[in-house]
Amino acid sequence: MPTLYHHPMSAASRFVRLVLYEYELEAELVEERPWEQRPDFLALNPAATLPVYVDDSLQAVCGATVIAEFIDEVFGVFKRDRRLLPDEPFRRAEVRRLTEWFLVKMEQDVTRYLVRERVFKLLMPKENGGGAPDSKALRTARANIRQHMRYLDWLTGSRDWLAGNTMSYADFAAAGALSSLDYLGEVGWSETPNARDWYQRMKSRPSMRPILADRISRITPVSHYADLDF
Amino acid sequence: MPTLYHHPMSAASRFVRLVLYEYELEAELVEERPWEQRPDFLALNPAATLPVYVDDSLQAVCGATVIAEFIDEVFGVFKRDRRLLPDEPFRRAEVRRLTEWFLVKMEQDVTRYLVRERVFKLLMPKENGGGAPDSKALRTARANIRQHMRYLDWLTGSRDWLAGNTMSYADFAAAGALSSLDYLGEVGWSETPNARDWYQRMKSRPSMRPILADRISRITPVSHYADLDF
Repeated sequence: MPTLYHHPMSAASRFVRLVLYEYELEAELVEERPWEQRPDFLALNPAATLPVYVDDSLQAVCGATVIAEFIDEVFGVFKRDRRLLPDEPFRRAEVRRLTEWFLVKMEQDVTRYLVRERVFKLLMPKENGGGAPDSKALRTARANIRQHMRYLDWLTGSRDWLAGNTMSYADFAAAGALSSLDYLGEVGWSETPNARDWYQRMKSRPSMRPILADRISRITPVSHYADLDF
Repeated sequence: MPTLYHHPMSAASRFVRLVLYEYELEAELVEERPWEQRPDFLALNPAATLPVYVDDSLQAVCGATVIAEFIDEVFGVFKRDRRLLPDEPFRRAEVRRLTEWFLVKMEQDVTRYLVRERVFKLLMPKENGGGAPDSKALRTARANIRQHMRYLDWLTGSRDWLAGNTMSYADFAAAGALSSLDYLGEVGWSETPNARDWYQRMKSRPSMRPILADRISRITPVSHYADLDF
């Protein structure tokens, strides 16, 4: 069986777990703490980023967008109307733009700060950067998240799904990021009703169940985290 | 004719210019200063990142890796042995991993600091963040570049081209980043002979000529910048 090196609070890892589930592909999940710089993990992925997918031939595919392209090429083309990357090049470009938006731009502006300061620093030894959250980083992330939520609300208000009229990788990239932030209670859903409706639809998918069952030691999720009606 | 919104010192923009040239695709180059947040540019790409490719039907494709996938789908498939993304999924994954390495990881660790502090801050008004370079950011980038050069030297010492035995997007992504840094004299070639040999091969390609002819106002390139024998 293939292996997915992941972390439960990594948005990019959640995205790939969702895609694997949607395509009914099994993989053994191995939790990795990339800041530990484990030599066997660095040998798989010198960039030390998550997730990493290792197939039955033991070849590694590194990084969420690279794994998503690989899965589309190897398995997606047989999925017909359940394929998560459309056929037409401009529509593919729009899916990729938004996948990158939530996994790269939102990660840089928001997610990495909140997850690092509030989760990873609790798990890291002090010499690797562990300790109390940096309040300036938290303030920056919380200011930036409002802009991202407004954009998500605009997208979900003007289209059936994030990248157009069919569900795509973009929806699962956004659900990966939003679900990590929602665990931490960082998403103010009341101001963005379209985004909330879209997330409610995403939450009701069977692929979200394992994500909504994730629990991190020492951090309890916000009370509505796993509620389908929130 | 299509339009490419770019900046001459943006590594990602240089990558796409190289790919367009290699595929004999013409595009009008329009220089964009993304920190100016020009409304017409934000309407094309709300992420305000470079480059952006706008085709004859006026549809925009945003960001270097998304443009590269689009170009491969629309034009690359007809290029046979000159195609810059191979056919086999694992080989494609390796090309994409390294393209991302030089355009995302090296950008975050090295290029954005050096280009921002040494070039963009000279061009920016003070109220947008312009002014003297931040010496701490420069120190961080200069420490990080050594690790990236060692990795490039290892790759070029163990393979014909960065991602295997044929030239690929990975080579042009690295050439885009390295040429920006070399303009600024930030690359210590003497310690990495394999990387130097590879860059000499890249520099001799016709697609590199417009890049080596780039000049930024107020900043003269290092003396060997355009020398094929350096």
